[in-house]
Amino acid sequence: MKYRIFTLLALLSFYASFAQDSLMFRKISNEIMVHANCYNDLRVLCKTVGHRISGSPSAAKAVEWGEKAMKAAGAEKVWLQACDVPYWYRGKENLDLLFGGKYVHVDALSLGNSEGSGGKTIEAPIIMVQNFDEFNALPEAAVKGKIVFFNYRFRQDFIFTFEGYGDAVKYRGGSPTVAAQKGAVGVIIRSMSTGEDDFPHTGGTHYKDSVKKIPAMALGNKTADKLEQACRKGQVKARLTSECHMMPKMVRSYSVIGEIKGTETPERIITIGGHLDSWDVGEGAHDDGAGCVQSIEVIRAIKALGIRPKCTIRAVLFMNEENGQKGGQAYADSAIARHENHVIAIETDAGGFSPRGIGLVMSKEQKEHLAQYTHLFLPYGVYDFSREEGGSDISPIHDKLKVPLAGLMPDAQRYFDIHHTNNDIFENVNHRELKLGAVVLTQFIWLVSEHGLN
Amino acid sequence: MKYRIFTLLALLSFYASFAQDSLMFRKISNEIMVHANCYNDLRVLCKTVGHRISGSPSAAKAVEWGEKAMKAAGAEKVWLQACDVPYWYRGKENLDLLFGGKYVHVDALSLGNSEGSGGKTIEAPIIMVQNFDEFNALPEAAVKGKIVFFNYRFRQDFIFTFEGYGDAVKYRGGSPTVAAQKGAVGVIIRSMSTGEDDFPHTGGTHYKDSVKKIPAMALGNKTADKLEQACRKGQVKARLTSECHMMPKMVRSYSVIGEIKGTETPERIITIGGHLDSWDVGEGAHDDGAGCVQSIEVIRAIKALGIRPKCTIRAVLFMNEENGQKGGQAYADSAIARHENHVIAIETDAGGFSPRGIGLVMSKEQKEHLAQYTHLFLPYGVYDFSREEGGSDISPIHDKLKVPLAGLMPDAQRYFDIHHTNNDIFENVNHRELKLGAVVLTQFIWLVSEHGLN
Repeated sequence: MKYRIFTLLALLSFYASFAQDSLMFRKISNEIMVHANCYNDLRVLCKTVGHRISGSPSAAKAVEWGEKAMKAAGAEKVWLQACDVPYWYRGKENLDLLFGGKYVHVDALSLGNSEGSGGKTIEAPIIMVQNFDEFNALPEAAVKGKIVFFNYRFRQDFIFTFEGYGDAVKYRGGSPTVAAQKGAVGVIIRSMSTGEDDFPHTGGTHYKDSVKKIPAMALGNKTADKLEQACRKGQVKARLTSECHMMPKMVRSYSVIGEIKGTETPERIITIGGHLDSWDVGEGAHDDGAGCVQSIEVIRAIKALGIRPKCTIRAVLFMNEENGQKGGQAYADSAIARHENHVIAIETDAGGFSPRGIGLVMSKEQKEHLAQYTHLFLPYGVYDFSREEGGSDISPIHDKLKVPLAGLMPDAQRYFDIHHTNNDIFENVNHRELKLGAVVLTQFIWLVSEHGLN
Repeated sequence: MKYRIFTLLALLSFYASFAQDSLMFRKISNEIMVHANCYNDLRVLCKTVGHRISGSPSAAKAVEWGEKAMKAAGAEKVWLQACDVPYWYRGKENLDLLFGGKYVHVDALSLGNSEGSGGKTIEAPIIMVQNFDEFNALPEAAVKGKIVFFNYRFRQDFIFTFEGYGDAVKYRGGSPTVAAQKGAVGVIIRSMSTGEDDFPHTGGTHYKDSVKKIPAMALGNKTADKLEQACRKGQVKARLTSECHMMPKMVRSYSVIGEIKGTETPERIITIGGHLDSWDVGEGAHDDGAGCVQSIEVIRAIKALGIRPKCTIRAVLFMNEENGQKGGQAYADSAIARHENHVIAIETDAGGFSPRGIGLVMSKEQKEHLAQYTHLFLPYGVYDFSREEGGSDISPIHDKLKVPLAGLMPDAQRYFDIHHTNNDIFENVNHRELKLGAVVLTQFIWLVSEHGLN
């Protein structure tokens, strides 16, 4: 009988705890959905700073903005963490395609980190391939002196668009190297794009050390369609000019960090972050202005609600995610140097869309512990905890210190229409979707701070 | 032993059936995500017809478009189902507000079905109330001869935005009647809007028979904010002019129906529909062009895949959902007259956004039967089958014939930013989100056709 009463009491306290958690979830949601400042923060970042590639003057301006915004949100301590970053500079660029005997200017973007033509014009015939297999089957003579058009399409049949991106992105990363190895003078790729439009998508590429660094440009889907048709009809030529290059020296830059000290276990740190740098197009609104302002919103909401979390909460605006991860590496190195105790690191870098899941990179036991609480997220539209997803900036702290990771997973149907394009602007972020992401992040952080990971 | 083998075989065939279903789900998804025509259909509807209020010439044009699109999709039989609909005509309208001693023109939309000022200008002081309670507490003398501003805000704290809409929409429907009962000469409402912008939202209102039909207009959130501030500071006046009125005669119109005959039980009918009419603003893209083109896409995909469903599948573009439901009523009446056997009626009228759930209006047993299959929808982002949601057009067939209902439930964070506004245009519909809705509808229809509801 005693045992039964004990069981009953244990059960009751178990459900009472859920009820309390559920109540706190609701308080967090109400605060953010009604009083959030993240949408306004994003407007200021997008419209007064704009895009902000690592090492550029606008990235420096973004750091200033971040420091100010973090303080305004109520962070108890705000500091800059130094890192030296590469600075890739686009300069002028132009692509003309010879369609039906006439050169036509088309919209194109040089791939990030690529080396252009040094401002000179390269004129060469285009050879089209659909994929690496087709390219590999070509004799060197067919490629030599040509511009290779890699016409691989982003597969629309993947419902989880990040899988489609993972499938296609090897053409952005690898095409220049393989083309150069066979003597090509340039590369054109079909963008990693789900778009039914003509925005070209930039993004990082890389060269193997042994090869010549040939220019590489991306086309939007409609222009790529036209080029594909022209190539099927007969020979097409291109005139490619670009000034882009990697600057010879690294540039001193910073990640921005804001902190709320924990009450019971201040030495235990929970990190939430996005990245402050962007590619040098559009306004870096979804990628990853959204993640930055959501991370700042976590701080604002906790302070506004007067929550005193057990653990220390740190919001980090990482520098240089796009082409170097120097901010993320500096953060991990600093954690090692200071013997910090990190409970979990969470990243939001998949767009400011409605949240659907939280990716978890941690032990089976830790996942099982969290599984007790996942039903609490259902009223906020979050149901998927099955994926092993963290984020680039927090990878180093996982690799070096085995810190468990989590990553916010929003609905990404629209993401690869605008990712790395001139269309990644503030107007394409919805205020409620953005806020709802911040709600779920704050709830998750509060949960881990309160109940730990095991 | 025999029993065990039997159980094992039963279990195996059970899982084999799931595996087959899962494979068919994938085939449907691949077909639609790669080859869908619904986004193109929507472009044509929005850009060549545009908005299409019941009874208007453009609604007639929409019927022609629908018939053509349904045939092009491969429907085996296409016909028009007649209904007589009201025709509400907006005409010219203007609202000036006296801000700081100066009349300023503001964007405003007369509420649908409302009677304007007959083209004359009404000039009157404004009295602001926050809600019905505040209004009810006012003496008649405070209201008489005034324009009442109902400043009720769409509550942003509801995560499921349809709940916020349900909470706020009584001010659109009920304000003119209560205001007229106390002698007001006009009504202004804050729109049923989650928007951080200034688009006014129209939508249906109604008058009690006993009261004077006074004009009623809606303001966007930013103008409503300004008016609120002005009212707090002192007296504000308005000059309101509008020609809108309900036309004296009903107009003959049509719902468009396309059908694929079932193979095994052709007498059993599954209906999928959206509504063809829209309010007379924007392009009726999400509301409900999306639902129309998704319903047509179901037909196209089934034909393209060569699926021969057991039951007859009917896509219906209902006329007059917005202000009369005459199409839905005619559909139910025809089903009764012809002694039709309807398995289920499904509606898609909540915007062309990423699907998240399917609302079910049916018996507990039928829901339990479907619950066996719901996990199949998870890879397509659909996890919520808990809501009792069908749709307006299919309500009559449920009410009159007890036909079970289902309603597609997309992510609706953005819906009430644009619902019933000039911003409900093609450009605000994402092609992948729209297609994914059509995928889930086709999967659900195939499932019910194959396995029934019990």
